[in-house]
Amino acid sequence: MQFNEILNQLKTYEPGKDIELIAKEYGVKEVIKLASNENPLGVSQKALNAIIQNASKAHLYPDDSMSELRNALALKFGLKMQNVIIGAGSDQIIELATHAKLNHQNAFLQCGVSFAMYEIYAKQVGAKAYKTKSITHDLNALKSLYEKHKSEIKILYLCLPNNPLGECLDAFSVEEFLKDIDEDCLVVIDAAYNEFASFKDMEKRIDPAKLIKSFPNVLYLGTFSKLYGLGGLRVGYGMADEELINALYKLRAPFNVNILALKAATAALDDEEFVKNSLENNFSQMQEFEKFARENQLDFIPSYTNFITYFFEEKNSSDLSEKLLKKGIIVRDLRSYGLNAIRISIGKPYENTRFFEEFESILKKN
Amino acid sequence: MQFNEILNQLKTYEPGKDIELIAKEYGVKEVIKLASNENPLGVSQKALNAIIQNASKAHLYPDDSMSELRNALALKFGLKMQNVIIGAGSDQIIELATHAKLNHQNAFLQCGVSFAMYEIYAKQVGAKAYKTKSITHDLNALKSLYEKHKSEIKILYLCLPNNPLGECLDAFSVEEFLKDIDEDCLVVIDAAYNEFASFKDMEKRIDPAKLIKSFPNVLYLGTFSKLYGLGGLRVGYGMADEELINALYKLRAPFNVNILALKAATAALDDEEFVKNSLENNFSQMQEFEKFARENQLDFIPSYTNFITYFFEEKNSSDLSEKLLKKGIIVRDLRSYGLNAIRISIGKPYENTRFFEEFESILKKN
Repeated sequence: MQFNEILNQLKTYEPGKDIELIAKEYGVKEVIKLASNENPLGVSQKALNAIIQNASKAHLYPDDSMSELRNALALKFGLKMQNVIIGAGSDQIIELATHAKLNHQNAFLQCGVSFAMYEIYAKQVGAKAYKTKSITHDLNALKSLYEKHKSEIKILYLCLPNNPLGECLDAFSVEEFLKDIDEDCLVVIDAAYNEFASFKDMEKRIDPAKLIKSFPNVLYLGTFSKLYGLGGLRVGYGMADEELINALYKLRAPFNVNILALKAATAALDDEEFVKNSLENNFSQMQEFEKFARENQLDFIPSYTNFITYFFEEKNSSDLSEKLLKKGIIVRDLRSYGLNAIRISIGKPYENTRFFEEFESILKKN
Repeated sequence: MQFNEILNQLKTYEPGKDIELIAKEYGVKEVIKLASNENPLGVSQKALNAIIQNASKAHLYPDDSMSELRNALALKFGLKMQNVIIGAGSDQIIELATHAKLNHQNAFLQCGVSFAMYEIYAKQVGAKAYKTKSITHDLNALKSLYEKHKSEIKILYLCLPNNPLGECLDAFSVEEFLKDIDEDCLVVIDAAYNEFASFKDMEKRIDPAKLIKSFPNVLYLGTFSKLYGLGGLRVGYGMADEELINALYKLRAPFNVNILALKAATAALDDEEFVKNSLENNFSQMQEFEKFARENQLDFIPSYTNFITYFFEEKNSSDLSEKLLKKGIIVRDLRSYGLNAIRISIGKPYENTRFFEEFESILKKN
C-alpha cells in the first residue's frame, strides 16, 4: 500500500521498555527510574482523591468545553477561559501549533538541543528545522539565524527552562527578544518546567498574561506532567491570544483529554502544599547532584529543572547508561541528541543515594 | 497571524454543553442524557477496581509499548500484538489513517450518513468526500461510486453497524465487496458498535483476524467507549496487517493514551458479566423503543447498536429536541447530518420510561 509521501521520511517509533520488563531482563529486584522527569513524590493527595471520587463516571464523555479546568487556569494566570486550550500533554498543543503553522514549504527554529517533539511533529508535515550551533539558548545566535531565514521560519521555540539541558533564559531578555520577531512568526514558549526555574530564581518566571498582552504571536505551554505529578494522565495546556487559541481549536479533536485527567488536574492545581514540598525536595536534592558532579569531575550545566545533565569527555554515555541499567537504574542517555551526556531526573533521597553509590562505582571501574 | 491555508476552510468547533450547565440553564433537577451512546450501566466493576488500584501511579508515564492491552486484544481476536495499535478513542486511529492516506489531492468514500469524524479529519487535510445518495450502507451504490472515482478514493469507510443510523451489513456481503476494492485503497471497518450487532445477529459479526488475513488493506476499529463503559477514558484500537500498523505508528505521538485508561481497558476486556448484562439490558430496552415508535407512528430503522433513530415527517427534530431539553432530557438532533431525525441512546429502564412519558406528551401537544 502507498502512503502519503511524508511517511517515507519518518521512522517507526520504538517505544521504550517498561520498568517491569527491564527488571525481568536484568534480573534486578527494584528498578529506580530517573529517566522521565516524573515527580518523585508521586500524585498529590488532592488529585488522588479526585481520581477516586470520579472513577465511577468513567463511562461518561468528559465535558468537552473543559470549562472547569480552563477557568481554574485562567484564574491562576489572570487570563480568560478563551485564552486557554487543554491538550493530552502539552505535546498535543505542540502538534496543533505545528499543523496550524508549518508545512513542507516552511521551517521552525530552536536552539541546538531542545525538546525532541518540536522536530518530530515538524517532520510529520515536512517542515525544515533550523537550529543554532550553540546547544543551549543563545538569543544572539537565535536572532541572527531568524533574521537570515525570516521568510521561512513560522515557529520559533523557546524552552524555558530547556529540556534536556536545564539552562534558563531570564524573562526580561525574552521580552526584549520578542520585540524583534515578526507578528506572523508563532513563538512557542515551552514552560513545562518553568515553575522549577521560578522557584530557584524569580528572574526566570514567565508571566503568560503579561506576554500575551504585548505579543499576540506568543503561545505559552504548561503541563501537569512534572511539578503537578500527573505524567501518566497526559494533561497540558496552551495559553495565548484568543485568535490563536481559536485557530488551534479548529484542529483539536473532540474529547482530547479524558475525564479523570481533567478532574485530577483541576484538583492538583489547588494542592499548594504538594507543590511546595515537590519544589523543596527537588532543589535540596539538586545540591547533592551538583556536589556529586564536582567530586567526580563531571561537567554539568546548573539546572533550573527537576533533572540534571552530566557531560562526559572520555567515557561514553551509552556505555554508562547501560551499566546503570544492569544495576536497575534507568537514566536518559542523550546520545540521540548528539551529546555524550546523560540526563538524570531528581528522585527521592534514597533513590538518589543509590544512584550516587552505583554510579560512583561504575565511574571508578570504567 | 496567517495560518496554513486549510484552516480557512475549517470552523472552530463549538463543544456541547455540560449536563450541569444544562440543569442550571433550564432549571431542571435531574438531567437524563441519552445523547452520547454511553453505557447506562456505568463502569464495569473490574475497570473501576483497576482505576482505583492504579490511581497512585498517575505520576508515572504509561508503558508506551502498551503491551499489556495490545496483547490482551490480540489474544481475544486471534492476532499478534504487532497487529494492534491503541488510540485515545478509535477517533484517534481515524485521524492517523487520514494523515497516512489522505491529502488535498485525493478523497474518501462513505455512505450518505455516517460517523461525522470521517469527514472532519478529512477536511483537516483538504481531502474530498464522496457519499452515496443512499443514507444507509448500500454496497451497490458504494461500489459504483468507488468505480467512478477509483483513482482518487484512498479511504473507504464502512461503519458496521452504522452510527448514527443503526443499520448493519452482513459480514459475508462485506467480504465479497472487499474483493473488488484495490489494495491501495484503505478500507476502514469501524466496528465501534459491532459487539451489539453480533449479539443481535451473528451474521453481522466482523472477525478482524479473518479479514486481515485476506485483505492487507483493511483496518478494523474497536472501542472501549460503548459496550465496555469507558467513554470518558478515551480508549480505542485499530487492528490490521503489520505493515499498515507500522505506518500508523509513524504518526502516533508517544504516550497517546493515559495510564489509567490503559489499566481500565485491560480490566474491562475481562469483565464478561458486565458485557453480558449490558447487551441484555440494551436489547430488552430496545424493544420498548420500537414499541413506542409503532404506537406513535414514528419511522425508525431497526437498530443493531445501543441507540435508535426516530425519523419525522411533519414535526421538526430540532424543535422536538429543544422541548425534550427543557424537560431535562438530552437526545441527539440529527439536523447537522441533514436529517429530520433524533438519535436516542438506550438508557436504563427508568430513564427510558421518563423519555417515553415526556416525549409522548410533547408529540401529542405538537
